[in-house]
Amino acid sequence: MPRTFTGSPVRDLLALTARPEVISFAGGLPAPELFDVEGLRTAFDQALSRRSLQYAPTEGDADLRALVADRLTRRGLPTDVPDLLVTTGSQQALTLVVTALLEPGAVVAVEQPTYLAALQCFQLAGARIVPVAGDEHGMDPAALADVIERERPELLYLVPTFANPTGRTLSAGRRAEIAALADRHGLWVVEDDPYSELRYRGEPAPALATMSDRVLYAGSFSKVGAPGLRLGWLRAPASIMRRLVIVKQAADLHTSTIDQAAAAAYLRANDLDAHVRTLCAAYRERRDALVAALPSTVPDGARWSDPDGGMFVWVTLPGDVDTGSLITSALERDVAFVPGAPFYAAEPDRSTLRLSFTTNTTAEIAEGMRRLAPVFTT
Amino acid sequence: MPRTFTGSPVRDLLALTARPEVISFAGGLPAPELFDVEGLRTAFDQALSRRSLQYAPTEGDADLRALVADRLTRRGLPTDVPDLLVTTGSQQALTLVVTALLEPGAVVAVEQPTYLAALQCFQLAGARIVPVAGDEHGMDPAALADVIERERPELLYLVPTFANPTGRTLSAGRRAEIAALADRHGLWVVEDDPYSELRYRGEPAPALATMSDRVLYAGSFSKVGAPGLRLGWLRAPASIMRRLVIVKQAADLHTSTIDQAAAAAYLRANDLDAHVRTLCAAYRERRDALVAALPSTVPDGARWSDPDGGMFVWVTLPGDVDTGSLITSALERDVAFVPGAPFYAAEPDRSTLRLSFTTNTTAEIAEGMRRLAPVFTT
Repeated sequence: MPRTFTGSPVRDLLALTARPEVISFAGGLPAPELFDVEGLRTAFDQALSRRSLQYAPTEGDADLRALVADRLTRRGLPTDVPDLLVTTGSQQALTLVVTALLEPGAVVAVEQPTYLAALQCFQLAGARIVPVAGDEHGMDPAALADVIERERPELLYLVPTFANPTGRTLSAGRRAEIAALADRHGLWVVEDDPYSELRYRGEPAPALATMSDRVLYAGSFSKVGAPGLRLGWLRAPASIMRRLVIVKQAADLHTSTIDQAAAAAYLRANDLDAHVRTLCAAYRERRDALVAALPSTVPDGARWSDPDGGMFVWVTLPGDVDTGSLITSALERDVAFVPGAPFYAAEPDRSTLRLSFTTNTTAEIAEGMRRLAPVFTT
Repeated sequence: MPRTFTGSPVRDLLALTARPEVISFAGGLPAPELFDVEGLRTAFDQALSRRSLQYAPTEGDADLRALVADRLTRRGLPTDVPDLLVTTGSQQALTLVVTALLEPGAVVAVEQPTYLAALQCFQLAGARIVPVAGDEHGMDPAALADVIERERPELLYLVPTFANPTGRTLSAGRRAEIAALADRHGLWVVEDDPYSELRYRGEPAPALATMSDRVLYAGSFSKVGAPGLRLGWLRAPASIMRRLVIVKQAADLHTSTIDQAAAAAYLRANDLDAHVRTLCAAYRERRDALVAALPSTVPDGARWSDPDGGMFVWVTLPGDVDTGSLITSALERDVAFVPGAPFYAAEPDRSTLRLSFTTNTTAEIAEGMRRLAPVFTT
């Protein structure tokens, strides 16, 4: 099956948002002013040594794996060091899983809409992507059962908590139903979980990975630490870990030794939970500022998500507007968003768009939304 | 075509060489005591900023690409910034090329023997690997012409200078012939070039990439800087660069922002050529020490390479010994090497083995070779 190299329209678009005068709601970028620059500087200084400059084991730094395992266990997902593979960002985890588990032509089931770089990854692997219907509580287990019956997928990809792009969270009851379906039908599930620590209200639901051995859990340092380090981890069942390690070795031998050692030094010396609380306090205000500005930004009849956490608000405009056609007008007004269509595996709803609220301050958000209003309403 | 996850026997074996009392000639590791730890510490400190902790363009850090382009140009391979994609080590470049250019079932032509993690990478892509005969001057162009005629490969993989595992260098004349074959038959060529700066005698031949637009050139910071940063680059024709960038984005979004910024800071502030001269002076002595010890280490009738550069001496023992069966005995004597068989795409010569001479001091090399002698001669 020939693969597709369609690229990402969003990628091309983001290139245009690099002008400093643009207020961008487009990229899913953490707030740079909240990075713990001095903490990370000290960590890199401590970590730098002959050992951290040398080749290292493919599985990852033993200290970092122990610290991550401990952190996941404390957050309710019991994890031992051998369960973990350090990855070059959680994006790499997706590619490793796909290479390890899928033959070309395999079927992958996804939420509709879903993370677009995951869609790209499945396309490059020559997979056939089948969307599964859902609502504001996430994927519908009955719709998944239907797709399993009809399409026999080998893999299900989910962002169950504060999904990209919708901000939706899969309810605890549906998690249990989906885990049971995975067990019953021998379906592999990727639980992509970069956002769950960024919770601004409500109580967490248990990770899918606590409910089934068919779940591969991908975590990341990008949203709670810093994305520039490209550090993620994959928690995977023992039955496929060796295969994943072989694929990782062919992919890049191992993740940066120095970045892993610095992350381990940082986690030992700092209270990441306290840092996450700081992030949550700031991001909560930013979400509120963006949601509060929406009624005066979008036309009557528009709908939007009011997410309990994460980075994104998902907007549906009224009528049969194509948000892709509005982006030029937005950039002329020095403001940017992401049109919704590329997040759909099939039959896009072109009246949708994604707004990221974490990158800009509340004042910038207010100004950006003022600039957006005439784009949507004229 | 079902893919193979055979893994690397060498990988499993290297796990056994981690005991500190083992003198290992196995891994292709640079000498850690020659890393410029303080230079890199300063570079990381300079590079650390809000910008270097954030997401970054997939193509790579603009400063680093400019510095690498300038360095390649000065070394005789004219290169502009848009020709370069920064990769997470040059290992990643192989995976990107394979994903971008090959369909499952495609034919890849390789030297015999060749770099084993390249073989793994082609196997995972579902490629069929066809070896091409050569001699001490590298791949035989007539044998390649034959393979092109018979097997219609889409890709040729070569380490033309100080090859892994043999230490051999492809002569200038053969380079021109192979480049002409690639042009004539529309064959893509990967020129994997991590070792060429580590030259201890003789004059360099021009890079294959200077001779044909069908050549993708992979370079690395691992052997001249430090492998722990996982920094490499791919110089590729414009016609396929966009496709490579899309594949890279799906693979890990981009390479570590901080490692790239630190490498750029290092290259601006230091004379890498002077550092490479220091490495070459030390490695030359180590090669000489290992080659000088060989006559008293291996049985009469053994043959070995005496490489002009790089990291490896390739040994062929007399008789029909299988060097794989000797590794346990070596480890019992606290010394390690790599058996040759895994480096062969087909019909291995099991009497071969690879000795790396860069990791250990001359005194350690002498002691290690004393330990090896009874392994080979009893």
